[in-house]
Amino acid sequence: MGDFIIGIDIGGSKVLTGILDKTGRVLTRKKETTCSQGQPGEVMDQVAGMIELMKDELGIGAQDILGIGAGVPGPLDYYRGVVLESPNLRWPEYPAGSELNKRLGSKLLLEKDTNAAALGEFYYGSSKKIRNLIYITVSTGIGAGIIADGNLLHGHKGGAGELGHMLIEPGGRSCGCGRQGCLEALASGTALEQEAREMIAHGQAQSIQALIGDGKPLTARELGWAARQGNKEAHDLISRAADFLGIAITNLVNLLNPERVVIGGGMGLGLQDLLLPRIKEYVFNHVFRLHRQDLEIAATQLGEDIVLLGCATMVLENKQMFRK
Amino acid sequence: MGDFIIGIDIGGSKVLTGILDKTGRVLTRKKETTCSQGQPGEVMDQVAGMIELMKDELGIGAQDILGIGAGVPGPLDYYRGVVLESPNLRWPEYPAGSELNKRLGSKLLLEKDTNAAALGEFYYGSSKKIRNLIYITVSTGIGAGIIADGNLLHGHKGGAGELGHMLIEPGGRSCGCGRQGCLEALASGTALEQEAREMIAHGQAQSIQALIGDGKPLTARELGWAARQGNKEAHDLISRAADFLGIAITNLVNLLNPERVVIGGGMGLGLQDLLLPRIKEYVFNHVFRLHRQDLEIAATQLGEDIVLLGCATMVLENKQMFRK
Repeated sequence: MGDFIIGIDIGGSKVLTGILDKTGRVLTRKKETTCSQGQPGEVMDQVAGMIELMKDELGIGAQDILGIGAGVPGPLDYYRGVVLESPNLRWPEYPAGSELNKRLGSKLLLEKDTNAAALGEFYYGSSKKIRNLIYITVSTGIGAGIIADGNLLHGHKGGAGELGHMLIEPGGRSCGCGRQGCLEALASGTALEQEAREMIAHGQAQSIQALIGDGKPLTARELGWAARQGNKEAHDLISRAADFLGIAITNLVNLLNPERVVIGGGMGLGLQDLLLPRIKEYVFNHVFRLHRQDLEIAATQLGEDIVLLGCATMVLENKQMFRK
Repeated sequence: MGDFIIGIDIGGSKVLTGILDKTGRVLTRKKETTCSQGQPGEVMDQVAGMIELMKDELGIGAQDILGIGAGVPGPLDYYRGVVLESPNLRWPEYPAGSELNKRLGSKLLLEKDTNAAALGEFYYGSSKKIRNLIYITVSTGIGAGIIADGNLLHGHKGGAGELGHMLIEPGGRSCGCGRQGCLEALASGTALEQEAREMIAHGQAQSIQALIGDGKPLTARELGWAARQGNKEAHDLISRAADFLGIAITNLVNLLNPERVVIGGGMGLGLQDLLLPRIKEYVFNHVFRLHRQDLEIAATQLGEDIVLLGCATMVLENKQMFRK
C-alpha cells in the first residue's frame, strides 16, 4: 500500500499522465502528443514510458503506488475494459484495460474519460456538497459523465453518458456516427470549424477570414477571437452552438434534475465567456421550475487536470473495478 | 405490522386504488373517475373513501396495514411531497403528501406515478434479473421513470424522468409547457388527436373521418382502428409519432444504457402493435453497438395495475420516504 496515485488521461490528440498524492495534489505531470494514431499498442507503450519517467523523477517504485486510474475515450465496454468504435482515437476495438494491465500491473482502474472527469469534479470541483452533477466536455467531440443521487452512472455495459449523439435537429448536419443532427455535429469544436469552412467556401463569412488572416485555419479558438473582436458572423456561429448545447442541457436537466452542470473540454473552456451566458439563459428559460431550483451551470475550475483528479478519486474510492 | 399494502394511483382522468398482499397480488381494487378536476382536496377525500370501502370489503382495519404507497402525476417535489404545476391534474401546487397523510395516517410513501410504475416493472415485470430499466408512459402526456444501476433515480428535487419535454423538433408543434417541439407535443395521445383534428379542419385526412364515422371523435384509439383497417393517413400519423418516440428512446439509450425500455400508458398499450415495431427499428438502427447489446424494448405486461405494484414495491422496500 503506497501513498502515490498514478493518473492517466488518454485522448485523441494528447496523453496526459500525473502522479498525485492522496489529497489530490498533482506532484508531477507529463503531457505528450498521442503516438501514431491508429496503433493503440504504441500509445500504451507511450503511457508506460511516461509513467516510468515520472516515477524516476520522484524516486519512487512499484511498492509506493496505491493504485492507477486511467481515463479513455468512449464508448467503453466498462466491465470488459474494451474501448469500442472510438472515432477520436480511430481504434476499432481495443482491450485497453488488459493492455494497460500488462504494462502497468494489476492496480489499474479504467473509466471513460468523461466519467473520470465527472468524478474529479464531484470530489474536487466545488466545496458545496451535492449529489447530482453532470459533466459535459465540449471539444473535438461532446460527451458527458453523469452522477445521479450520489452514484456515477454506468448503465448496462458502461455506456451511460453518450451525450454527443443526442439528436437535436432531425435532418440537420451529418455526424461522424452516420446520423444527422446529433449534438456533436452541431456544437463541437469540429462542427464549428467545419461550418465556418463551409460558409467561406460558399462565399459567406469572408469577414471572419479577413479578420483572422488569409489562409489561417478557422479553429474554434480563432472564431472565438474574431467574435470577441466584434465580428458578427463568428459571434452568430458560436451563439448557435451555444443554443444547441442549451437544448441538450435542458433535456438533461429535465431528465436527471442535477444541481450542477459543469462544462469542460477545449472549446467549452476556451469559449466559456461566449458560450456560458447564452447556455444559461436558454436552460433557465426552458426547464421546469422544480428543476431550476439550486441549479448551477458553470465551467470547471479544475482545468486540464480534471481527468487525473478523477483517476485519484477512482483509486481512493476503489469501488470501480473494470472486471466484474 | 400488518400484512396488507394499500396502493393508490391518482391520474388526471381516473383514480385507481387497490389492496395487495406482500407477494404483490391485488386482492381488491377500485377505479373511479377523478373527482372535479382543479379541486385537489376533493380528490384526496375520494381516495380516502375508496380505501375505506376496500378495507370494509376485506374486513381489515388500520392495524392490518403494512404501508401505503401512492403515485401522483409529476412534476413532484419529492422530498416535500408537493405536486407542482401538473398540467394533467390542473393543480397549481399541492402538498399531496401531507394531505394524504392527514386522511390516511403516516405509513404513506409518495412517488411520481411514472417512478412508481418503473418500480413495479422492475420488481414484477420480468423474471430476467436486470439493473437498468426505463419505463415510459405514452398517454395524454408522456413521462418516464428511470432505474439506473439498480436505483430509482430522483435527482436533486425528485424531478428526474421528465421525458415529455425532451425537445425533439425545434420549432415544431406547440407544447402545453410553452415550448415548441417537445416529445409530448409530437407523440402523446393528445398530440395525435389534435393533429388528426387539424388535418381534417384543413381538408386533409377525410378518409380517416369517413372510415371512423362523421362527427365521431378522432381519439388515438379510433386512429389505431383506422390504421389497422388499412387507412394510410391514420397509419402515417401513428408512424410519425412512433418515429418521434424512437428518437427520444435513442437519446435515452445512448445516455443511460438500459437493458430494458418498457412502454405503458393508454396509447402506448392500445397502439403497441403499431408503435413498437417501428420504435424498435428506429432505436436499433440508431444507438451505439455497445448500447444495443441485450437491449429489449417492450410493452409492459402489468397492464393497468403497474402503479399499484410499484406502490407495493415502495412499501416493501421502504427506502423511499417522502420527507428527508
